[in-house]
Amino acid sequence: MARIVVKFGGTSVGDTDRLENVARMVQLEVERGHQVAVVVSAMSGVTNQLVGYVDKIMPLYDAREYDVVVSTGEQVTIGLVALALQKRGVKARSFASWQLPIRTNEAYGRARILSIGTEEIEKAMAEGVVAVVPGFQGVSGEGRITTLGRGGSDTSAVALAAALKAERCDIYTDVDGVYTTDPRITDKARKLPMVTYEEMLEMASLGSKVLQTRSVELAMNHRVRVQVLASFRKLNGEISFDVPPGSDMPGTLVVDEEEIMAKGLEQSVVSGIAYDTNEAKVTVANVADRPGVAAALFGPLAASNINVDMIVQNVSSDGRATDITFTIPKTDLPRARAVLEERKAALGFTELHTDADVCKLSVIGVGMRSHAGVALTMFETLAKRGINIAVISTSEIKISVLIAAEYTELAVRALHTAYGLDAA
Amino acid sequence: MARIVVKFGGTSVGDTDRLENVARMVQLEVERGHQVAVVVSAMSGVTNQLVGYVDKIMPLYDAREYDVVVSTGEQVTIGLVALALQKRGVKARSFASWQLPIRTNEAYGRARILSIGTEEIEKAMAEGVVAVVPGFQGVSGEGRITTLGRGGSDTSAVALAAALKAERCDIYTDVDGVYTTDPRITDKARKLPMVTYEEMLEMASLGSKVLQTRSVELAMNHRVRVQVLASFRKLNGEISFDVPPGSDMPGTLVVDEEEIMAKGLEQSVVSGIAYDTNEAKVTVANVADRPGVAAALFGPLAASNINVDMIVQNVSSDGRATDITFTIPKTDLPRARAVLEERKAALGFTELHTDADVCKLSVIGVGMRSHAGVALTMFETLAKRGINIAVISTSEIKISVLIAAEYTELAVRALHTAYGLDAA
Repeated sequence: MARIVVKFGGTSVGDTDRLENVARMVQLEVERGHQVAVVVSAMSGVTNQLVGYVDKIMPLYDAREYDVVVSTGEQVTIGLVALALQKRGVKARSFASWQLPIRTNEAYGRARILSIGTEEIEKAMAEGVVAVVPGFQGVSGEGRITTLGRGGSDTSAVALAAALKAERCDIYTDVDGVYTTDPRITDKARKLPMVTYEEMLEMASLGSKVLQTRSVELAMNHRVRVQVLASFRKLNGEISFDVPPGSDMPGTLVVDEEEIMAKGLEQSVVSGIAYDTNEAKVTVANVADRPGVAAALFGPLAASNINVDMIVQNVSSDGRATDITFTIPKTDLPRARAVLEERKAALGFTELHTDADVCKLSVIGVGMRSHAGVALTMFETLAKRGINIAVISTSEIKISVLIAAEYTELAVRALHTAYGLDAA
Repeated sequence: MARIVVKFGGTSVGDTDRLENVARMVQLEVERGHQVAVVVSAMSGVTNQLVGYVDKIMPLYDAREYDVVVSTGEQVTIGLVALALQKRGVKARSFASWQLPIRTNEAYGRARILSIGTEEIEKAMAEGVVAVVPGFQGVSGEGRITTLGRGGSDTSAVALAAALKAERCDIYTDVDGVYTTDPRITDKARKLPMVTYEEMLEMASLGSKVLQTRSVELAMNHRVRVQVLASFRKLNGEISFDVPPGSDMPGTLVVDEEEIMAKGLEQSVVSGIAYDTNEAKVTVANVADRPGVAAALFGPLAASNINVDMIVQNVSSDGRATDITFTIPKTDLPRARAVLEERKAALGFTELHTDADVCKLSVIGVGMRSHAGVALTMFETLAKRGINIAVISTSEIKISVLIAAEYTELAVRALHTAYGLDAA
């Protein structure tokens, strides 16, 4: 018997039929003898509808009232899932965030979970009752409803698993696991049986939207074993479970590096190839090459809430002027341009080049720490296909390069093969 | 400056445009210097949608989870109305029922309000903040969400007005007040400027669905002055307020008899003519005329949750057998027939006659207490038109008769004239 937290979001709580399937899957875990807590999102489209109401009345809203409105979506789902479980003969009850409570800070609309009271849930579990809890929300110190921001339900689930010291946190999603790369780009992509927190974190922040970055951070900090798996798949045109009874590890397990090593699994040097086409490149040409110029450039961008990602500064030949290139979210490009043009005289640059047709390509793997030559393989593979690299940035377990967007698929496929990731 | 509670339900919170109109009306009250608390229902159709979800998953639901789901409709509205008020520069905040709290008993799905904590609202009012509160719900002793049953928002508003010792409880509805009779039947129907709690109670329980019966009882018990008024009316094709600034009493005030007398208003003997075509007549012929037969007849009906309304027992000529006639809700007719037929031998009756084409016609007025001849006028008026009376029942301020449904409009118009209620 184990204690597990299971989380259902997205299309897996799409409508009442889907909710009945959720109940079937939870029932399966209960029948395996597990103590189960369920975390659910709002039904598909509900949150968007609620946000739409708020936007219609007041686009510059009071975040506290926004949270009152938007948090109701999950409250509907917890009641319905509890009912669907009862219908199947599984004892269940819903808990609102204020009933546990799920305490957060006062950052309405983007709150962070501070603690979760587990007394009520543990009492329920001891009585064989499945607890159904809303994701995405909590209650502030002053006793008002908060929400965690989009995708916060993953974080709720991991935080609850940590509080309950659960054996595992199963996150059911629209994909059936974490792949070596996007299966839409190459059919040679393989599902990874296990991946480390560190790798998952790099993948999450690189646009592989399997899990929210914050939830992976939390899992890593509290050593919560997270399993990513598909809620449904089509078999002969029918929606079916992705968890055949008896099969225990159908998705991808996100765990500690030591657990993977302890299992003696053959670990590749590189675990996956990620790409992100949501960034844009900005080059500020002929900036005066003197101390403080980077701060003068990036300060105003930060003040405007524009996140700068990759940065390169070219060595100036004459020691007087230099070019600085960096990337920002594509959607922030018009604002960034305005911010910089406004300060053109102060910064002393001559030209501003921007390019939205770029792709940030990354190879990720904890094996890099102990293996040399990983970067070289990447550069050689791209060079052989005539793909030019505009910017390079590296971390301990990741190498990222910026290339022209048109080469994305070619580059992903070539690297997937080069690092020996292709499915047999 | 007065303290008032205003309640908006039905189509007045139909969509976000209507909610903005609600905010305009509340703003008007604030600008008049009033301290205002707002009680709101769910937006049109929302509660039905939520109930639909529950029914789809589990028709025989756990009422506690039903309440969790169904109570979210009002939570959406409170946040949106608070936002709409803020948009107009009116300070406002929403309060969930558990934040005040609105305490109820544990009768999930049909709970009764026990008490309302006013500390938070009074603090808000002292700071010039309009409190926006959800109708229809509360929190039980064990800390779970409850709902009051359909139409419970009127009761929430009256209970809040009582708790806050408010000067008035304004209930905005789809009609603009209480009329001497249904205006769809005669264009001579007049809007009553004032009506007593007792009269309103009789009208409410007789199918004039302006206010929920329970809310009128509560208002009477706590002497809450209730004003019924229209949220909107069409003026030259445009939706407009029914409260022109400066006009203070546009609807119908439901108050104590003494207040009406103190104002020296000419009070008619009869205030209104009500009718109800939702009852059916049942006659059980040739029942043994012995002690205990009525109990034997009505016991099983009560056990089957069938409400019996009017009852007459004819005097038997031979002292051996008698006919008993009574009315029940039309929708319960098939069940009642089954219950009685099953006990035919035990009850010893020979025949069962039912008639669903009947109308319960009532004249209502506190003036009856001190005036004789009111019933006679009714009987004579109906006799003159050849309308037969099947059953008669009376209370202190009401006379009801059962007639054939086809005479409904004729009878209503004739009585409206006979009691001097016709508009000039």
